[in-house]
Amino acid sequence: MGRWEPNARDRLALAALELFGERGYEQTTVAEIAGRAGLTERTFFRHFADKREVLFSGGVDLRGLLERGVAEAPDTAGPIDAVAAALTAISAVFAERPDFVRQRHAVVEATPELRERELIKLASFASALTDALRQRGVPALAASLAAETGMAVFRIAFQRWAQQTDQKTDLARLIHDSLDELRAMTAGAATEDRVGHRPGR
Amino acid sequence: MGRWEPNARDRLALAALELFGERGYEQTTVAEIAGRAGLTERTFFRHFADKREVLFSGGVDLRGLLERGVAEAPDTAGPIDAVAAALTAISAVFAERPDFVRQRHAVVEATPELRERELIKLASFASALTDALRQRGVPALAASLAAETGMAVFRIAFQRWAQQTDQKTDLARLIHDSLDELRAMTAGAATEDRVGHRPGR
Repeated sequence: MGRWEPNARDRLALAALELFGERGYEQTTVAEIAGRAGLTERTFFRHFADKREVLFSGGVDLRGLLERGVAEAPDTAGPIDAVAAALTAISAVFAERPDFVRQRHAVVEATPELRERELIKLASFASALTDALRQRGVPALAASLAAETGMAVFRIAFQRWAQQTDQKTDLARLIHDSLDELRAMTAGAATEDRVGHRPGR
Repeated sequence: MGRWEPNARDRLALAALELFGERGYEQTTVAEIAGRAGLTERTFFRHFADKREVLFSGGVDLRGLLERGVAEAPDTAGPIDAVAAALTAISAVFAERPDFVRQRHAVVEATPELRERELIKLASFASALTDALRQRGVPALAASLAAETGMAVFRIAFQRWAQQTDQKTDLARLIHDSLDELRAMTAGAATEDRVGHRPGR
């Protein structure tokens, strides 16, 4: 059983998602995941530290892709452009296996522990984007704002993408639409004179 | 010892922050907090469920204040204006006890478990803002974007406020500056033609 199993990692991930969807994340054991995939627990643990890793092990690749997307954006790209390019790059990865991504999202949303882990992962993506922008020479405040705002746009676009029933609109398009909406909204946004008052308490 | 103790809650909170700062959050016990405040553990547990609650029990008030800030913004205020008004309202609360807020922030930043809890709290604030905007009739996408972007701006402004050594600039001003910077940045932001390409992989 110690020998190499073809596509073991993918088979385990798909089996895990099926079971999480059917029984719930907490009620599923590693033994059941391995059994569903026709593999042993030992094989499972060669690929994943625990069952949560099935859902989060892709985060490191995505982070690297975000960093590269910012680094490789054209010199003329402003901070928001560079972040948008990076988000477009990870959208393309999601587009390669939309069903897996949607099922994963449903499991994460259904489990408070996983939702918290997801928040932490997304916060780490924002930090990675900020650092990558700083390395392009973007000043600290602009870098943080572009990174955090970009991740907010991404989260919202991703939610819309995951929830659409017809699956007609791709994620990159939803990200661009959300950025356009944000731009339209901030164009008429707060100046100090208008919001400097404190609402009555 | 069961009788009412004047300012027990504030004394316990200050004692806790002192000890967290001196010894670290994890190394501090409820018995030590009560002792430093000159009170009993029983009194502590009348005010807080556990030592973490000392740092997070204010969240509910802040959430209510954010909701009210949005609800009470003038009818003419756009979504971002309404969020900015709400953030200005909680800045005013922080301004009432800046030392407590800064010390609390330092403890939270130093402890991974608390940083995670803080992320979750801030995410719940964004949800509350979204709901409050929806109740003003703001469409779903615009509500989410204004709320999430507003919280991103708030987090960044708060970090700057907490880190400044001269403590010269107040939080409301930093929030407005960050919003202005965001507006300037998005004014020249992504259009699909400019970011629709996928960076080389």
